[in-house]
Amino acid sequence: MTRFRPEALATAMQRRLDALGVAPESSRHVVASLLETSLRGVDSHGIRLFPHYDRACQAARVNGRPSMQLVASSPSTAVVDADHAFGHHAGAYAMDRALERARETGVGAVAVRHSTHFGAAAYAALRAARSGFVAFSFTNADALVRAAGATVPVFGTNPVCFAAPMTGEDPMCLDMATSTVSWNKILVHRRSGQPLEAGWADDEIGNPTTDAAAARMLEPSGGYKGFGLGMMVDVLCGLLAGGPVAREILPMFTAPLSERRSIGHFFVALDVERFVPLASFAARLKTLADEIRSLPAASNAVMVPGDPEKRTSAERSLAGIPVEDPTLSELLALGPDFAAAVVR
Amino acid sequence: MTRFRPEALATAMQRRLDALGVAPESSRHVVASLLETSLRGVDSHGIRLFPHYDRACQAARVNGRPSMQLVASSPSTAVVDADHAFGHHAGAYAMDRALERARETGVGAVAVRHSTHFGAAAYAALRAARSGFVAFSFTNADALVRAAGATVPVFGTNPVCFAAPMTGEDPMCLDMATSTVSWNKILVHRRSGQPLEAGWADDEIGNPTTDAAAARMLEPSGGYKGFGLGMMVDVLCGLLAGGPVAREILPMFTAPLSERRSIGHFFVALDVERFVPLASFAARLKTLADEIRSLPAASNAVMVPGDPEKRTSAERSLAGIPVEDPTLSELLALGPDFAAAVVR
Repeated sequence: MTRFRPEALATAMQRRLDALGVAPESSRHVVASLLETSLRGVDSHGIRLFPHYDRACQAARVNGRPSMQLVASSPSTAVVDADHAFGHHAGAYAMDRALERARETGVGAVAVRHSTHFGAAAYAALRAARSGFVAFSFTNADALVRAAGATVPVFGTNPVCFAAPMTGEDPMCLDMATSTVSWNKILVHRRSGQPLEAGWADDEIGNPTTDAAAARMLEPSGGYKGFGLGMMVDVLCGLLAGGPVAREILPMFTAPLSERRSIGHFFVALDVERFVPLASFAARLKTLADEIRSLPAASNAVMVPGDPEKRTSAERSLAGIPVEDPTLSELLALGPDFAAAVVR
Repeated sequence: MTRFRPEALATAMQRRLDALGVAPESSRHVVASLLETSLRGVDSHGIRLFPHYDRACQAARVNGRPSMQLVASSPSTAVVDADHAFGHHAGAYAMDRALERARETGVGAVAVRHSTHFGAAAYAALRAARSGFVAFSFTNADALVRAAGATVPVFGTNPVCFAAPMTGEDPMCLDMATSTVSWNKILVHRRSGQPLEAGWADDEIGNPTTDAAAARMLEPSGGYKGFGLGMMVDVLCGLLAGGPVAREILPMFTAPLSERRSIGHFFVALDVERFVPLASFAARLKTLADEIRSLPAASNAVMVPGDPEKRTSAERSLAGIPVEDPTLSELLALGPDFAAAVVR
């Protein structure tokens, strides 16, 4: 297993984006998001995506030098037109506008239109929660999850992400697709030839399948509940943002890279101090988390949302970030900085 | 099947609450919530609960003459101390404070402490969505859902409710427990002797069971995802409100009715007009809903969240609200107004 040294990998990605002409205020968020996400073990949304982003930027789907604009603004709300920026930048920019508003009024809610894939939803939410805010982060995506009761997909994996500050450790962070599993999990099984678990996916006519090669759509998490949550996310990210929703959104990997997708996001920041003192809130959340962690376990350890990512982050910060082919070859093809970042 | 005429049943409940000395600003929300919820077919949270509320009010768990106070307030937030009011009243009061703030700043977020069971989460959310706002409604509840990876329950069925205005019909409304099924569903199977479906519930040591009599806790919807959402709801409704969370909350039915539960709620209202014109938002949501309804169906009709409730409401508004024993006997024992409300 090849591993990369985190800081050296960050440097390699930064230099590559500089060479592509990406503005520093964009590239720093792309690098920080991909690095943090891979350290946290969420490989589906980490540096695995860098070669794709590289191509998307060259093909002008992603605008590396965006001019972000507030097309609407009020004391607690805003709508950002992201000018097809890297979604990581658009998300950080929008969450910062939400935080400004939350500092003034107690809450900030910001919708984003004309954006691109923003990586892990947790990047923006953790940013806010580490500053003492309770935060939500949502994004829409192209249709991939079977609509409850139907034979076709309507909504994307449309994640719900929630983060809250906790004394003495990184925030609690729930970051969940509203599908049963991620599409990436299907792809991993397709490569390995292993069958899928029942209830994960359906074939092209909407029938359940455990054949990864035949899978064409995902099942919503909890049936109609995951479908309903996916619709909620598109109401926030598509309709409130004034952008496309559901089947109007182009697929990420199979649409031409010259075509823009106009992804939408939605962010909320709540100033804890307007409700209860932050110190007591964070201490009570820590107590609750520790109580849950010490519950009698069914098999493995009992964890709260974000715990698996904290463990992986601690391990990978020391040992490096593991990368497999085809991502490994793609990264190494991007220049000697990547080869220099490999752990020897 | 005995059915009640909706208006006559409302009158009977109103008179009964008047006789118990409940303040009109409380009783009107209890009556409106229970009636709307039963009309929408959500029998677990409808008039079935009236006899329980009647007893809880007499035993002083519920304060029929509350003095609600804003213990914290800012341009977009508030914390309400509900003085152990009927939760239906506390929820409507808090959502009205959220709407006031959303009209001023674009968003209102209001936490409630020292409340009681608020019935269906949809009551407050629909109230806001019918006024042109996108709304969230949450409540915590006593520990009943198995923590992911553990053998014991930690969080309640902690619902997530989301509503949004739609042209030409009642709002879209998702109102879902974060457990796989409701506890009431287990009780229905316990009475009928029918086995539970696999994945619904666990026995007293946390092992899966299909025996309704042996069920002691519910499974979270979608495994750790439902567990994570349940924790999110308790962070909002317990920690941000400054009230009890998780296993600190007394059970609804088995704790002495003289003991107060201090339930917490959380409400958010977003002024659609601050993002996009309300008319275009509501029209696009209607188009999306109709598109989903016309998708190729796997078996029955394809529906969007709230559709089953709209159908049932249309039917029951004409035919009356069906009530079975033991609720039927309990209602008839409350006085002749209830008998007079039965459809002959």
